[in-house]
Amino acid sequence: MIINAKRYDKNEPSVEFVERKGKGHPDTVCDNLSEKLSVALSNYYIKKTGKILHHNVDKAILVGGQSRAWFGGGEVLEPIYIMLVGRAISRLGDEVVPIGTMALKVVKDELRKTFRYLDPESHVVVDYRIKQGSVDLVGNFNSENEIPLSNDTSFGVGFYPFTDTERLVLEAENYLNSERGKSEFPSVGEDIKVMGFRNEKKVTLTVAAAMISSLLKDSREYLEIKDQVIGKLSELASKVTELDVQIKLNNADNASKGIYYLTVTGTSAESGDDGQVGRGNRANGLITPLRPMTLEATAGKNPISHTGKLYTILSQRIAQKVVEENKKISSASVYMLSQIGKPITDPQSVYVEAVSDMSTEAVKEYSQSIVKEVLEKAPQTWQDILEGRVQLY
Amino acid sequence: MIINAKRYDKNEPSVEFVERKGKGHPDTVCDNLSEKLSVALSNYYIKKTGKILHHNVDKAILVGGQSRAWFGGGEVLEPIYIMLVGRAISRLGDEVVPIGTMALKVVKDELRKTFRYLDPESHVVVDYRIKQGSVDLVGNFNSENEIPLSNDTSFGVGFYPFTDTERLVLEAENYLNSERGKSEFPSVGEDIKVMGFRNEKKVTLTVAAAMISSLLKDSREYLEIKDQVIGKLSELASKVTELDVQIKLNNADNASKGIYYLTVTGTSAESGDDGQVGRGNRANGLITPLRPMTLEATAGKNPISHTGKLYTILSQRIAQKVVEENKKISSASVYMLSQIGKPITDPQSVYVEAVSDMSTEAVKEYSQSIVKEVLEKAPQTWQDILEGRVQLY
Amino acid sequence: MIINAKRYDKNEPSVEFVERKGKGHPDTVCDNLSEKLSVALSNYYIKKTGKILHHNVDKAILVGGQSRAWFGGGEVLEPIYIMLVGRAISRLGDEVVPIGTMALKVVKDELRKTFRYLDPESHVVVDYRIKQGSVDLVGNFNSENEIPLSNDTSFGVGFYPFTDTERLVLEAENYLNSERGKSEFPSVGEDIKVMGFRNEKKVTLTVAAAMISSLLKDSREYLEIKDQVIGKLSELASKVTELDVQIKLNNADNASKGIYYLTVTGTSAESGDDGQVGRGNRANGLITPLRPMTLEATAGKNPISHTGKLYTILSQRIAQKVVEENKKISSASVYMLSQIGKPITDPQSVYVEAVSDMSTEAVKEYSQSIVKEVLEKAPQTWQDILEGRVQLY
Amino acid sequence: MIINAKRYDKNEPSVEFVERKGKGHPDTVCDNLSEKLSVALSNYYIKKTGKILHHNVDKAILVGGQSRAWFGGGEVLEPIYIMLVGRAISRLGDEVVPIGTMALKVVKDELRKTFRYLDPESHVVVDYRIKQGSVDLVGNFNSENEIPLSNDTSFGVGFYPFTDTERLVLEAENYLNSERGKSEFPSVGEDIKVMGFRNEKKVTLTVAAAMISSLLKDSREYLEIKDQVIGKLSELASKVTELDVQIKLNNADNASKGIYYLTVTGTSAESGDDGQVGRGNRANGLITPLRPMTLEATAGKNPISHTGKLYTILSQRIAQKVVEENKKISSASVYMLSQIGKPITDPQSVYVEAVSDMSTEAVKEYSQSIVKEVLEKAPQTWQDILEGRVQLY
Repeated sequence: MIINAKRYDKNEPSVEFVERKGKGHPDTVCDNLSEKLSVALSNYYIKKTGKILHHNVDKAILVGGQSRAWFGGGEVLEPIYIMLVGRAISRLGDEVVPIGTMALKVVKDELRKTFRYLDPESHVVVDYRIKQGSVDLVGNFNSENEIPLSNDTSFGVGFYPFTDTERLVLEAENYLNSERGKSEFPSVGEDIKVMGFRNEKKVTLTVAAAMISSLLKDSREYLEIKDQVIGKLSELASKVTELDVQIKLNNADNASKGIYYLTVTGTSAESGDDGQVGRGNRANGLITPLRPMTLEATAGKNPISHTGKLYTILSQRIAQKVVEENKKISSASVYMLSQIGKPITDPQSVYVEAVSDMSTEAVKEYSQSIVKEVLEKAPQTWQDILEGRVQLY
Repeated sequence: MIINAKRYDKNEPSVEFVERKGKGHPDTVCDNLSEKLSVALSNYYIKKTGKILHHNVDKAILVGGQSRAWFGGGEVLEPIYIMLVGRAISRLGDEVVPIGTMALKVVKDELRKTFRYLDPESHVVVDYRIKQGSVDLVGNFNSENEIPLSNDTSFGVGFYPFTDTERLVLEAENYLNSERGKSEFPSVGEDIKVMGFRNEKKVTLTVAAAMISSLLKDSREYLEIKDQVIGKLSELASKVTELDVQIKLNNADNASKGIYYLTVTGTSAESGDDGQVGRGNRANGLITPLRPMTLEATAGKNPISHTGKLYTILSQRIAQKVVEENKKISSASVYMLSQIGKPITDPQSVYVEAVSDMSTEAVKEYSQSIVKEVLEKAPQTWQDILEGRVQLY
Repeated sequence: MIINAKRYDKNEPSVEFVERKGKGHPDTVCDNLSEKLSVALSNYYIKKTGKILHHNVDKAILVGGQSRAWFGGGEVLEPIYIMLVGRAISRLGDEVVPIGTMALKVVKDELRKTFRYLDPESHVVVDYRIKQGSVDLVGNFNSENEIPLSNDTSFGVGFYPFTDTERLVLEAENYLNSERGKSEFPSVGEDIKVMGFRNEKKVTLTVAAAMISSLLKDSREYLEIKDQVIGKLSELASKVTELDVQIKLNNADNASKGIYYLTVTGTSAESGDDGQVGRGNRANGLITPLRPMTLEATAGKNPISHTGKLYTILSQRIAQKVVEENKKISSASVYMLSQIGKPITDPQSVYVEAVSDMSTEAVKEYSQSIVKEVLEKAPQTWQDILEGRVQLY
Repeated sequence: MIINAKRYDKNEPSVEFVERKGKGHPDTVCDNLSEKLSVALSNYYIKKTGKILHHNVDKAILVGGQSRAWFGGGEVLEPIYIMLVGRAISRLGDEVVPIGTMALKVVKDELRKTFRYLDPESHVVVDYRIKQGSVDLVGNFNSENEIPLSNDTSFGVGFYPFTDTERLVLEAENYLNSERGKSEFPSVGEDIKVMGFRNEKKVTLTVAAAMISSLLKDSREYLEIKDQVIGKLSELASKVTELDVQIKLNNADNASKGIYYLTVTGTSAESGDDGQVGRGNRANGLITPLRPMTLEATAGKNPISHTGKLYTILSQRIAQKVVEENKKISSASVYMLSQIGKPITDPQSVYVEAVSDMSTEAVKEYSQSIVKEVLEKAPQTWQDILEGRVQLY
């Protein structure tokens, strides 16, 4: 393992772009279904064998349906189609693992948890194509090593702390999709996309929220709710940041043409928006092109040996620890690279970038102990994942 | 349009992680199929109506098959499954657009172009679920504006120039998948993944190349070819860079266990590796977690109004121009943000980061003219895309 | 229209083969789903336009799942897959007909009505491929004729009355799948196949009934229930016929090898038995190779113009009327042939075979009036179909 | 085994309905694909293990596409979709049987053999869902018995000889789809449906033949070809029978409305006609509602133990032998019923109906020896099936 570090002067970009695809967005839905299938499989394997067996269900596709929404009502004309894809150990000795039944159950349950107005039975076709894992990887996986071996050469990337804009984007969606948000604004659906654009001290928050057509009797009510939501988000913004924040909601609306963002179910998936795993939020919940990001999807990967998933979590933890435990460091980015076949506690490289007054040498030395500390606990990370204590999308 | 810029001191990270998934990798295959379907649709629309109509076929899923490869032979036991997904205008007046036939033809043709040993007829199941585009977007799309309107609020990100490590990763794969590479090493398949890791002055290039089992009579020949490929790549490396480059090829091989990276068809998709659009290379052909990246998949998006695609290209062009036309600027990153419903020539924000001795003000002023120049030609970008003059994955 | 007839002497075969696939058999499930989709579509079209529009959803496929059943429990390991197939008018002006949503709803509802222990959500994948009807047929269909035109050249076949063996087979299944049957024998599932074989005066009734594993604690209880069911069916037989009836239940059981006909859900579809429309019972509810049969599936065909469906019903009606209204005729078979493009009231041929003392001439003359009478009411037959007053499978 | 027989007076119906769905009809295409997959599997199993292992691939569905045909050209707008369904032994020890690859290859090869103008690559989506056979049946199947055991309680039905009308229908299609027919009338496609209706001495032969649009430059040529085909068929008819035969070809054509039966590919499947296995011709190649028929599909069933397939063939053989070897018998129908778990040479019942001057007793006695003779060779029937010496659809 090579541990490197570098110090940087604080020299923040004058501009920020930050996006979050809310829990009802087609891409996030795919992330969530894949991840929850991985959790279900993991729990099943543990129950049956005492350990988590190989699986990698990190692909899924959602084909948008067709719908017609109008003030006061609406109908889904053509269902959404979802297919879960991946590999998993499908036999334990003579016993068949009920992957298909599990997949269907996970999808139906999660769609019910995610949406209030989507009926998984008549609005969604669910299929799956999940195959037996490849023999080599299975080999690695079942080995007697106490410490699992990396199943691929993959990246992990994390940074800490969030900027105001980042927190704002995350919290805006979280609020609107929270229990409280739903009780205050029931007509705001779950497919909420928030785009934050900061230019120097000014932030524009562009929110696209699929509204529930059956709960809005006319355009007047729609526009009133919009105003109220904007008010509420402005209030929230003033608590999060001192920046000057402007809120735009459903900006593509065009009252003169009768165009409003109405949906029957609360998601744009009902009318043609497609989705996939790993095309939306990074593990910290955001898309941040001016910040380090990895392309690895975390959702659906096994939590034992897939370093594309684990190192994403670990690099965030390292970054956070590096900053929180040392007042001389104001922010940090961490990059990790695994090596296929080596223990997950032994990455090929860990690189820490810190904004600090310290020297590069000092940062490096200081970081090393934190890296080691975090890596030591890496083999237990799966527990946090299974119990949902880690954000992944 | 807000154009911002910032100058930075040269302060390169001591570490680099760079990856490329070659043309035969399941993710890249999905990218290519989606993009080529977009090109086919675009050409069809042009032929029929004189212009490119709305489509967005930027989703696809590949479910890996099952195979058995041995030295001297092998067979595909279970075919690969591919589904193309998206939306497209499916009627021109009374005339139906033959999207399905087109999709099948594109897939078969492209698989034949990509692979020498994969038989699209017996090794692949091809399906598609492509729907009529949503009415609103279609509305925007068909408007009489000369300049198309952005169909979403999306990012574009680009940088210039490549580092040595980046060029090395790209060229290694390009060479092995070139006509010359194939004639020198016919047994090297098309699914080639290259991972470059630079630590200070030392680069480790880890190459995973699916070997064609039928062309290798035994492990001795396999190992000989490996040595030759490593030799050739070292030679290539010495031309690209003065860094110290170590090449590792098929590092997971384990001769004592009889494990070699053998495939029947030249791609890991034959035995369980799944793929999706937008999960692999960025538009410049690389995955670079220490460099700015966007999550937007470019493949399959329409080349007229989808700024997730266009701005990715334009930001690269701006970065290149900014550097190439000014000796005081050694490298640049460009970030763009579109605004739904506004002309594509009028982004919400363009932000230029330049490593330069110039002042931020000077960089900004200088960049502005280049940004405007590039944006002016934005409405013609589709031509470069259709004629394949732009790298997209 | 040519109406022919012929008298025959009573000369019954010394042997009978009669089969019924119960409501939970995979083929019958397909029949039922297709037919109920046709009914749903018909009702929708009527509600929207006042008339039934063209559709033909008379194909479906069921791919059996995988399950594990044991005394006291069981689980579905791999779901059943069902795909509905056909054509239907999918647009009324600008309005899209919600065929897909309707198809999903019909399948889920009907599976719930058919089975007590099958969970449509986690035990079944439901998909559909239903296309817009062909233009020609649509043309015929929408014409202003009061009397619909035949949409094909098809057969209809019917006979009357049932023999004792036929009634016995039908009633045995009907009883076991009746509310009373289920309350008396809750552990008898819905997939019940009855085969009647009469040799002279002796009938062997072979019943295969999928038993519900969770309701049977051990083989002893299983065998007790079997005895009770056999007793009950013998009782029923003695009411239906004076023939000597022997009952065999789940004859493939083999206690010494521990083989019993156990299912989790009540249908063999859970463990690999596949199904299709039109592969099981004829419209009278039976399969009778020694009696006239047509290959036309009735299920899923539109009830207005599809003579493959209508003439099957009408020929049965004619046969029944011919026999019931004339004491000199003890049994009759009726064959009808339509002509594409001609009114459904004007078949190409109607042929009546009657077992009678009357002359062929007399039978013909007598039959003609009945044929005409029945045909006159043909254009109203759809009402009986929609309201479920006609047996179709 | 109970062998029964009965003599009847010759008392032929005054009417006949006889249909044949030609080799390019969607139902026949499904039959052929399923059967050829069974043959491919059988040959594979033999090659690997010396014997045919359990499989039952007797379900398939074809979803019609969409096309536009015009004189001189045409295009397939939406491909045909085909899914093969069933069960088969998928592992021989550690070795996986390449069922999927085999299925794709069979479909592509057979479509090429069946059609001249259908391109399996761009006109057809091919999928399959074939599962591992159920354990019980596999048990029976692999037993050490020399004589296979019936895998179900099924019927077989056969009759001999054909009437003139029956031969006419069969030969009309056979001729038009023969090499010679295709060379004389290249523009006649492969989807040819022939319906024969005899009323006393008069036969109406209604032929629907999908014409190849690209080979016909205008309606004049189309009508000319029609006349020539009618002429040819009349000629053929006069060789087959002395009955008065009228030929109707593409009777739904309507020149004044510009309606002709044009197709791009030679099959109605291109524009919405769906298909399934077992919905068309019986094993003798015909649909004959006035003759004994079984509902069992023969196509796709394993040729070793599936009595639904075997007994259909055997009953035809018995009928033929009964007639051919005894001049006192002019025609015969044979019905067979198997018993699950019993040797295929020991049916539950064989019933022979003979039109004869002999007594019922004499017919019975005479038939018995033939039945036994034919049954003795039953275990070799699979060879005829594999080598294509038996008509099945």
